[in-house]
Amino acid sequence: MADGRELTHVTADGSAHMVDVTDKAVTRRVASAQAVLHTRADVIALLVAGELPKGEPLAVARVAGIMAAKQTSALIPLCHPLPISGVTVEFTVDESSVRIVTTVKTTGVTGVEMEALTAASVSALTLYDMIKAVDRGARITDIEVLSKSGGASGDWSRS
Amino acid sequence: MADGRELTHVTADGSAHMVDVTDKAVTRRVASAQAVLHTRADVIALLVAGELPKGEPLAVARVAGIMAAKQTSALIPLCHPLPISGVTVEFTVDESSVRIVTTVKTTGVTGVEMEALTAASVSALTLYDMIKAVDRGARITDIEVLSKSGGASGDWSRS
Amino acid sequence: MADGRELTHVTADGSAHMVDVTDKAVTRRVASAQAVLHTRADVIALLVAGELPKGEPLAVARVAGIMAAKQTSALIPLCHPLPISGVTVEFTVDESSVRIVTTVKTTGVTGVEMEALTAASVSALTLYDMIKAVDRGARITDIEVLSKSGGASGDWSRS
Amino acid sequence: MADGRELTHVTADGSAHMVDVTDKAVTRRVASAQAVLHTRADVIALLVAGELPKGEPLAVARVAGIMAAKQTSALIPLCHPLPISGVTVEFTVDESSVRIVTTVKTTGVTGVEMEALTAASVSALTLYDMIKAVDRGARITDIEVLSKSGGASGDWSRS
Amino acid sequence: MADGRELTHVTADGSAHMVDVTDKAVTRRVASAQAVLHTRADVIALLVAGELPKGEPLAVARVAGIMAAKQTSALIPLCHPLPISGVTVEFTVDESSVRIVTTVKTTGVTGVEMEALTAASVSALTLYDMIKAVDRGARITDIEVLSKSGGASGDWSRS
Amino acid sequence: MADGRELTHVTADGSAHMVDVTDKAVTRRVASAQAVLHTRADVIALLVAGELPKGEPLAVARVAGIMAAKQTSALIPLCHPLPISGVTVEFTVDESSVRIVTTVKTTGVTGVEMEALTAASVSALTLYDMIKAVDRGARITDIEVLSKSGGASGDWSRS
Repeated sequence: MADGRELTHVTADGSAHMVDVTDKAVTRRVASAQAVLHTRADVIALLVAGELPKGEPLAVARVAGIMAAKQTSALIPLCHPLPISGVTVEFTVDESSVRIVTTVKTTGVTGVEMEALTAASVSALTLYDMIKAVDRGARITDIEVLSKSGGASGDWSRS
Repeated sequence: MADGRELTHVTADGSAHMVDVTDKAVTRRVASAQAVLHTRADVIALLVAGELPKGEPLAVARVAGIMAAKQTSALIPLCHPLPISGVTVEFTVDESSVRIVTTVKTTGVTGVEMEALTAASVSALTLYDMIKAVDRGARITDIEVLSKSGGASGDWSRS
Repeated sequence: MADGRELTHVTADGSAHMVDVTDKAVTRRVASAQAVLHTRADVIALLVAGELPKGEPLAVARVAGIMAAKQTSALIPLCHPLPISGVTVEFTVDESSVRIVTTVKTTGVTGVEMEALTAASVSALTLYDMIKAVDRGARITDIEVLSKSGGASGDWSRS
Repeated sequence: MADGRELTHVTADGSAHMVDVTDKAVTRRVASAQAVLHTRADVIALLVAGELPKGEPLAVARVAGIMAAKQTSALIPLCHPLPISGVTVEFTVDESSVRIVTTVKTTGVTGVEMEALTAASVSALTLYDMIKAVDRGARITDIEVLSKSGGASGDWSRS
Repeated sequence: MADGRELTHVTADGSAHMVDVTDKAVTRRVASAQAVLHTRADVIALLVAGELPKGEPLAVARVAGIMAAKQTSALIPLCHPLPISGVTVEFTVDESSVRIVTTVKTTGVTGVEMEALTAASVSALTLYDMIKAVDRGARITDIEVLSKSGGASGDWSRS
Repeated sequence: MADGRELTHVTADGSAHMVDVTDKAVTRRVASAQAVLHTRADVIALLVAGELPKGEPLAVARVAGIMAAKQTSALIPLCHPLPISGVTVEFTVDESSVRIVTTVKTTGVTGVEMEALTAASVSALTLYDMIKAVDRGARITDIEVLSKSGGASGDWSRS
């Protein structure tokens, strides 16, 4: 394998399990992730117009992302439950897209990449739910980890 | 607006609510959606090798997608609960990517696009969780509805 | 008993059960409920100031109430699951209080009073969570059903 | 502001987030809260009569409150998940009311006021659910924190 | 196969899916199931003594069973969500065992055997949780469907 | 009582509560449990045949067991939430039965027996769900703790 690491969720006989992290150190960990919703410029105009006085479309998607971060270990089968200590969900609205960037923190034995990705994904799905009546063809792309810090594998940023 | 429809999740004053679908007809509805996980060819080789004897990586992601479809209305704030009557999650493994296609059925008053999208997204996130030890930089793209049928708005396919 | 009806959640021997509603008619049902959060005038001023540009405090509480309505049968042990077809959560901000009024709709065999009450309660608890740093002594009162319609017991309004 | 503290769930631009508590000290924390259900004397008589042989109405409400305490961070959007280490739910039955007092303990970085309030609220809603067939007009009041201890803000009791 | 029926949760290629029940008839359905907890006579004596004044051990297990019935489709991956219309959980306390019998009703397209079994299992696990401090070696046996009625496959009773 | 220990989930007046474990030591804890599904030899033949190429029936039950372990404190009313640090679910397929053995690990203040039992039970229920179309009469037995280690009560194995 390119980097010498193994697929740690798979046992010798290939059956899935939640890997034993009992002996991993408890450290402060942070992860950021993103998702991008692509729609039409006229839909963005509606979102922005609706947002300025009331902020609701983005507010609903922000709450959905934060709450989803807390449900990550219930959604992703082999993910460990973690005591999340902070979540932010931020939006950058462009001409025909919305970029969602999430940051999740914990003090625990595993990283929070999955929590950050889940928050970004559910936030994007929520935005889609709110615009699908006017743009069923909207698409979500570029769901990815942007950076992480803490833990044995050290810091990492998408280059 | 391009197609004359309104953002139905937003009230006159812009506050969010779960729209009243009490008067909508109960019909059979189907929706398909997809997500694509992009990784490296050597990771796909591992996935495939791990899959041949036990089928576990895809099996775990398939179960995660099916279970997530049932949690859609708990994850997406303004989504109506629906009696889902069938879910499939299928994978197409390519040289350096996995394409996930989901199909969800119901007999109800609203469509199941969100359920199909949620199943695809969580299935993709689960695959990411299982490969992130060897490819943290993997990316999920092209989350979108492929087709839908049933309901007042009629049938639709991504062209 | 004043109105000749029985405590239907209790069996002859007093043990709890989820009452059998198999034979009840499926009808359209609506229920409204409220809760009132009492705080200080200076806290309301903060809420309002924070609300005007971004609408966040009330937006978060609104989303929390809508999502809680969908979790009612998971929270209240003897409550039947219901296909909720609409939810609104509205706020009236007064000098030193916020009044929350919820309306829930369904087409089903039981009423939605519990869903409306749960939405109002969780929305009020969420507002408390957002102001407790400045007013730990805030209090929630007057959680009650305002009106209901549909079902064998007919329409009812608090007089 | 009266006491010099800020609304910590709101960012500079007013958007909601789960505040970062990574650097807060892990300490033992306790919080007590209450809720009061007001009904008619004849309904209390039924509750008490039903309670003496089987204890079910209060037993169901007690279990509901304990289980709700554990769901607090899933219900209140900006609430941190906490490892709850103890919960009690006690009832004082008066002539025409039931007072519910909850106590929640943890060893963690944030207080458990929300858990105690959520337990009291859901316990009261459960009692309402069990008596609503004979008193739809019952009302829940006085949901409030009674006392807290532990954490940087120190001990506090409602005076 | 002995009775000519197929394993309907498995597709032609062996991958799991939630089977399509869109075309099945909506009928009234009932299922009963059981579980038996075996412990020591002195533990049963404690349970009974504790039960007589307050009914709590069995009351907690009863509530747990009812609530678990409502979570069945979230726990069993390929199980369809169903609008449960009634649940009872009854106990028969013997010299050194407790027999739990559950009955679940619905008006829907699939049977409620899994709901009845899940209620019985979780009720038994809850009893174990309450006695494990005095009998860690207690054992749960005989989890099985007792009878079912409704649906295309007709009525069935364990002979 | 035989071994001098008390039923710690019951208070002096017999009312249920989540016992206070605030002062218990945080230690590494492991528990193993089992469940056995009894069916017919021809059903086992189908399971095995279906399993060899795709591994799906056992894979689905394995995932269900792992995910259920994480939901234990939401299912068992008086169970404490715990940061699970590892879960395995293993199957031994015999002529007419499947034995499920689960192992759960944590670093926490209470043991993980309930998590191991819940994982075994839900895994067995999932297998039943997948074979019930061909053997409605299948039965689950021998749900029990096999061993535990860690905590004040020390190590224990079923003799």
